Amino acid sequence: MGGYEAADAAADRRDAVYDSIGALIGARPHEIARSEHATAAWNAAFWSVPMAPGQHVVVHDHEYGANIVAFLVAAERRGVVIDRVPSAPGGGVDVDAIADRLDRFDVALVSLTHVPTNGGLVNPAAEVGALTRAAGVPYLVDACQSVGQLRVDVDEIGCDLLSATGRKFLRGPRGTGFLYARESIAERLQPSQPDHHGVDLVAGDRFEPRAGARRFEYWEHSVAGWLGLGAAVDHARSWGIDRIEATITERADQLRSMLADIGFTIHDEGERRCGIVTTSTDRVPSTDLQHLLAEHHVNSAVTPPDSSRWDVERRHLPVLLRLSVHYTTTVAELETAVEVLARGG
Amino acid sequence: MGGYEAADAAADRRDAVYDSIGALIGARPHEIARSEHATAAWNAAFWSVPMAPGQHVVVHDHEYGANIVAFLVAAERRGVVIDRVPSAPGGGVDVDAIADRLDRFDVALVSLTHVPTNGGLVNPAAEVGALTRAAGVPYLVDACQSVGQLRVDVDEIGCDLLSATGRKFLRGPRGTGFLYARESIAERLQPSQPDHHGVDLVAGDRFEPRAGARRFEYWEHSVAGWLGLGAAVDHARSWGIDRIEATITERADQLRSMLADIGFTIHDEGERRCGIVTTSTDRVPSTDLQHLLAEHHVNSAVTPPDSSRWDVERRHLPVLLRLSVHYTTTVAELETAVEVLARGG
Repeated sequence: MGGYEAADAAADRRDAVYDSIGALIGARPHEIARSEHATAAWNAAFWSVPMAPGQHVVVHDHEYGANIVAFLVAAERRGVVIDRVPSAPGGGVDVDAIADRLDRFDVALVSLTHVPTNGGLVNPAAEVGALTRAAGVPYLVDACQSVGQLRVDVDEIGCDLLSATGRKFLRGPRGTGFLYARESIAERLQPSQPDHHGVDLVAGDRFEPRAGARRFEYWEHSVAGWLGLGAAVDHARSWGIDRIEATITERADQLRSMLADIGFTIHDEGERRCGIVTTSTDRVPSTDLQHLLAEHHVNSAVTPPDSSRWDVERRHLPVLLRLSVHYTTTVAELETAVEVLARGG
Repeated sequence: MGGYEAADAAADRRDAVYDSIGALIGARPHEIARSEHATAAWNAAFWSVPMAPGQHVVVHDHEYGANIVAFLVAAERRGVVIDRVPSAPGGGVDVDAIADRLDRFDVALVSLTHVPTNGGLVNPAAEVGALTRAAGVPYLVDACQSVGQLRVDVDEIGCDLLSATGRKFLRGPRGTGFLYARESIAERLQPSQPDHHGVDLVAGDRFEPRAGARRFEYWEHSVAGWLGLGAAVDHARSWGIDRIEATITERADQLRSMLADIGFTIHDEGERRCGIVTTSTDRVPSTDLQHLLAEHHVNSAVTPPDSSRWDVERRHLPVLLRLSVHYTTTVAELETAVEVLARGG
C-alpha cells in the first residue's frame, strides 16, 4: 500500500486524534494543531504572536533552553524586552511580579513553562492565567512535561496557547506533538512560516490563513506518528488522568523521602510537585550515578546546563540526576534505584 | 528500553545517516541537517537567507505550492520583490531570463524546484547554478521530487542550499527530510527559529549558531524516522542511483507513449523528463480515473490546483492524473494501468 493510500485508509482515525487531544485538555478539536515535536509546536505559537520593539515578553527564570534561545533571538530581531520574572521564595514563578509587569509595561506575551525540566516544580499556571485574562495579554504555556502526568485543562489554566510533546509523560512516539490555540486568539495570529495547508492560496498572489489552529500545521507530517500520539492519548484517558496524577505524585513523594533518607540533596522546588525528581550528592558526579543505575537497569537522566540555563545559573546548580516516575513505577523499583544510589553514592 | 536509551544505543547508526546522505548527493556530512519533512527543510533554508526590502527573489513559475506561499509571505513581511521567471518555449525555466535578472537587479536568492509536482519536467538546475555562482547569489534548490530518482550532485548543480524529503523517490518514512547547506554559505546564515541545539547558549544572554548545517536542526526529532531515512538512502545507493535513473526514465517514456497511443494528453514539459507522468483526457475527470485505477490496485495521484497554482494558471491546466514510476515498476504493470484507462477513459 502506498503512503497516500495508507493515509486515506486511516482518515477517520486521523480526525479522531484531534477529538482525543481536545478531550484530554478541555479544548475543541479545531483548536488543536498537530506538530512535529514540542519545540516546533512552541515555536509555531511564539513566532506568531505580534511583538513590537519595546514591548515586554514576560517569562520565568525556569524556562526551557529552547525557549530561552527564542527569547534572545526575539530580543535581537524584534527589539522586545525579555522580562525575566524570578521565582517566589518557595519556588514557582512570582505571581505578584507578573501582575506588576502587566500593570506597568506594554506586554506582548506572557510565557510560562508549566513543569520545568530541572526540578519537580509545578508552576501556578492558573494564577498567571487569571492575570493575563484580566489584562487581555496573550499567554503561552509550555506543557511539554505536564501533559500526560497532570490534569491540564486549558480553561482552568486560562491560557491562549499551549504546546506539548507526545513522547514524555504521554508515552507516545518521538517526533510528535501538538499545539492548542484558543479560537478567540487563533484568528488574530498569522502563522510565521506557513505552507499551502496553513494558509489558503485564494489566488496566485493572495493567501488567507485557514480557520482555527490548522493554520499552525504543515501539510506533510508523519501519519503513523500522529496515530501513535492518538493511541497514547486514548490510553492515558482510559486510565484516567486524575488517577495518573495521584499515583505519580504519591510515588514521587515516596522517592524524595527515600533519597533524603540516604543523604541525597533534593533540588525540587515549589508548593506543588510532580513526577520529576531531581537530586545530587557531593560525593559522586551525577553522570557516574546515571551509569551506575543503568548497570542495574534503572533508566535516569542528567540535566545538561543548556536545557535550563537561567535556572542553573540562578541556583548555582551542579549537573543533576533526574529520576522520573510514572503510574507504572512500583515501590519495589524505587527501592532498587535508591539501594543502588546508597551503595554507589 | 526508554527513548533516550534507545537513541544512545543507536548513536553510531544515527551519525552514519549524515555520511550516507552526504555520499548520495556529493556533500560532506557536516553540510547535512536532518529535518521533519521537505517543507521544514526548505523553510529552514529560505527563512535564513538575508532579504532586504526591494531585493528580488528570483523564482520559476513551476514552484511548489508551499514555496509559493513562502514567497508571498516574504513579499508581504520583508518587502522583497518576487520575480517570477517564465518557462522557456520547450518547458523548463528560462535560463536566459534568470541571467537577465541577475544582471539587472539586486537579487537576494534564486529559488528553483528541480522536479515540479505537475509534469515530468527536470529543470536545468546546473545551468542556473553556473549563473548564481558567477553572480555570487545564494541558490536554493527544492529537490523534493528529484532525490532518489535522479542523480543529484550539489557540486554539479552548483547550489548553496538543497532540500529533500525521505518519503518520495527515496521510499523512506513520512516525517523525514534533510537540508544540504554548503559550508561556505552556512556560516553566513542565521537559523530563523533556532533552539538550543541549533545555537549554542554561550551565556545566559548570548548565543552563537553551531558550526555547519547543524544550526538548521532541532534537538528533538524522530530517531526511528531518521534511521529509516538512512536505510532508504543506503538501499538506493546499493542499487545505484544511475541505474535507478536510467530505469525510471525508460519506464516513464514507455508509459508516455502508451498513454499517447490511447489518446490521452501528456502534460509533461521540458527537454529532459523524469519518472513523473501527468496526463488527462477530456472524456473523464482525473479523479474518476484515479478511483478506477485504485479498483484495479494501481496507485495514482491527482494534482490539486493549490500544489502548483502558478503553473496551473499559466497553462490553464485541468486537474491532472499523476502516475509515478520507479525502478521496481514493471512493463506489465504499465500495461495494466493503460488498459484500465483505455477502457474507462
